[in-house]
Amino acid sequence: MRIEHLGIAVRSLSDSDDLFARLLGKPNYKQESVEREGVKTSFYGLGDSKVELLEATNADSPIAKFLNKNGEGIHHIAFGVENIGYEIERLKKQGFIFISEEPKEGADNKLVVFLHPKSTNGVLVELCQEKP
Amino acid sequence: MRIEHLGIAVRSLSDSDDLFARLLGKPNYKQESVEREGVKTSFYGLGDSKVELLEATNADSPIAKFLNKNGEGIHHIAFGVENIGYEIERLKKQGFIFISEEPKEGADNKLVVFLHPKSTNGVLVELCQEKP
Repeated sequence: MRIEHLGIAVRSLSDSDDLFARLLGKPNYKQESVEREGVKTSFYGLGDSKVELLEATNADSPIAKFLNKNGEGIHHIAFGVENIGYEIERLKKQGFIFISEEPKEGADNKLVVFLHPKSTNGVLVELCQEKP
Repeated sequence: MRIEHLGIAVRSLSDSDDLFARLLGKPNYKQESVEREGVKTSFYGLGDSKVELLEATNADSPIAKFLNKNGEGIHHIAFGVENIGYEIERLKKQGFIFISEEPKEGADNKLVVFLHPKSTNGVLVELCQEKP
C-alpha cells in the first residue's frame, strides 16, 4: 500500500490549475472528467504519487456537497493497492466500513472504492487499483 | 518536490495507532513528541511517503484548535524539498503566503515551514527538508 494520490476539492479548476502549477513548479499532466461522479479532475505527478484537483460539474456532485459544507481543501487520500478485492475483504474483517463495497471505474484508469470516514478518524480514504 | 507525508489530527494516539495499523496493514515505525508545537506524533511508512498521526499534548496546540474546529481528519500535506530556503524564495515570488518564513525544527529530523491555507485553496501545506 502506498499514497497514490491526494484529492483536493476546488471551486474553479482553471483558477486552481494556475495556483497548483505555481505551487508545485510544474503543469498538470492531464485533465479528465468522470461524468458519473460529477467531477472534472486535474492531475499533477509528484514522484510516485499525484495531486488530483476535483471540480464539481453539477450540484449533486459529492464535490459540490463537500464545498458547500467545508469550502475548498483536502477531500480524500487514495492508497494504491495491488489487489483491491483482497484489500476490501481484509479491511471488512478488520471492521472498516465501506461507502460501497463494489469497485467502480474512477479517473486515471483506476478501480476505486471509498471507506466511510466514520470508521477512519474522519478521513475519506480511497483504495485504488490500476485497471487490468 | 514529492509527497513526504500526510498529517492527520487525532484525539487519541493510542486509539488511532490501533486503527491505522489495521488500515495500513503494518505498525507505526516510531512515535515522537515535538514539545514546542504541543504535539505527539506517530509515523507509518508507505513507499516513499508517510502518514503522520498528530495528537495534541496541551490545549494551546495547533492540533487542539484544529480538533475543536473540525474534528478528526486530514490536517496538512507535506511536500519534501531538497532546499527549503530556495523553495521559500521561489514561492514568495509567486505570491504565496507563509505562516512563518523561518524554517523550524519539526518531527522526524526535518526543517519545516507552513504556507497559509488562504493562499493554497484551503490546504495547509508544509514544506520539509531533511536536516543536514
